[in-house]
Amino acid sequence: MPRVGVGTDVHAFAGPDESRELWVAGLLWPGQPGLAGHSDADVVAHAAADAIFSATGLGDLGSNFGTSAPEWAGASGASLLAEAAVRARAAGFVIGNVAVQLVGTRPRLGPRREEAQEVLSRAAGAPVTVTATTTDGLGLTGRSEGLAAIATALVVPTHHAPGGPHLPA
Amino acid sequence: MPRVGVGTDVHAFAGPDESRELWVAGLLWPGQPGLAGHSDADVVAHAAADAIFSATGLGDLGSNFGTSAPEWAGASGASLLAEAAVRARAAGFVIGNVAVQLVGTRPRLGPRREEAQEVLSRAAGAPVTVTATTTDGLGLTGRSEGLAAIATALVVPTHHAPGGPHLPA
Amino acid sequence: MPRVGVGTDVHAFAGPDESRELWVAGLLWPGQPGLAGHSDADVVAHAAADAIFSATGLGDLGSNFGTSAPEWAGASGASLLAEAAVRARAAGFVIGNVAVQLVGTRPRLGPRREEAQEVLSRAAGAPVTVTATTTDGLGLTGRSEGLAAIATALVVPTHHAPGGPHLPA
Repeated sequence: MPRVGVGTDVHAFAGPDESRELWVAGLLWPGQPGLAGHSDADVVAHAAADAIFSATGLGDLGSNFGTSAPEWAGASGASLLAEAAVRARAAGFVIGNVAVQLVGTRPRLGPRREEAQEVLSRAAGAPVTVTATTTDGLGLTGRSEGLAAIATALVVPTHHAPGGPHLPA
Repeated sequence: MPRVGVGTDVHAFAGPDESRELWVAGLLWPGQPGLAGHSDADVVAHAAADAIFSATGLGDLGSNFGTSAPEWAGASGASLLAEAAVRARAAGFVIGNVAVQLVGTRPRLGPRREEAQEVLSRAAGAPVTVTATTTDGLGLTGRSEGLAAIATALVVPTHHAPGGPHLPA
Repeated sequence: MPRVGVGTDVHAFAGPDESRELWVAGLLWPGQPGLAGHSDADVVAHAAADAIFSATGLGDLGSNFGTSAPEWAGASGASLLAEAAVRARAAGFVIGNVAVQLVGTRPRLGPRREEAQEVLSRAAGAPVTVTATTTDGLGLTGRSEGLAAIATALVVPTHHAPGGPHLPA
């Protein structure tokens, strides 16, 4: 039987005195205000990776790539997504698909949707779709304080997949 | 293998000087303050449609029905959901189900849940369930600035379904 | 064909003059500020239960356990999740899995993730995974006004499962 997972992420835009590149959905968006954070702050890639962890029961972004794993500090969102997929497969799961929605006022995803989907699908080794919406001027994304993303993933356990301590069976 | 998708939507309540009807979950709610927007602002129907696009990789609400598709300007949320389902089937997908949660202080969905589910399920040609919750007075929905909805969908590709450019395989 | 569902929940932290225990993800978190509410305000368990109702079309937390069902007033989140699972099975569904993400600044879930997953999986009679994230200081959870949770669930209808009035077929 397949399993589903969910992941969300939020990052604040950097202040005007910080020179940060904007990385969203595995892509660099030249000339756009960047997001703050120690990582590249790619909310779309982060939400996608967390949805895979959520579906497979392999912890979350923090437990896999947080302060206890300094070798991942500064890694790109796409590389975290790729590693999440590697760990899911190593644990015996096939990744069916991942779907992510970007929530915020900018960048405009539409013109680069195909490119984003290709980069993230290559990283995950499975179809990743990317959509976008806004919140009608309301909330943290409506006021352009930051960007949010929400993702869901479907995985299928193979006969190798455990019901072990990290995944209650 | 099935694919899952996700969609959210937010619309602000209209100002007191605007006379707007409230359309939520495919239903007219007489006597209730309406939502602002060019469309009917039906957050539930919009989130449901976007979840279908997200699962199938057919773009999103904006790319399908936005400014580049003026023939859909002013279309009801239920008709956008119906058209999203038509496009998903035309691309080779069977729609398994769609589930939407309305987030906000009003209208009270419960007494009309069955009616909403019937209207939206007929539009989608698949079971659409509708639930509701509040946010304990917090955030944009808690302060009654607007309504939000979050949806997930499950679809199954048939042998006609592409792994084409719009859906990375 | 499987069906998916979605559920979110938000509760505000209690004021400093209220002595409330913090219950999150089926666990008591001693020494932590509690959440306000008539129930135990366990956003993780509540979102999980609502995701099951959403997937199965059996209403929602409010219609099942709200003011019209006073016998459930004061019930723990874990017991509501258990009862949601009982009702889903009685209606002819097998629960595949539930995945929940806690969104907020505290408590720190990581050290007690396994324990939480065990308690909630036992309640649901199916694998429940729990992940956590923060929102970079933004929004109601970033300002520590409250906690949020978002859940998804996958269920499979058996031949007993209805396409009845509560679940449009």
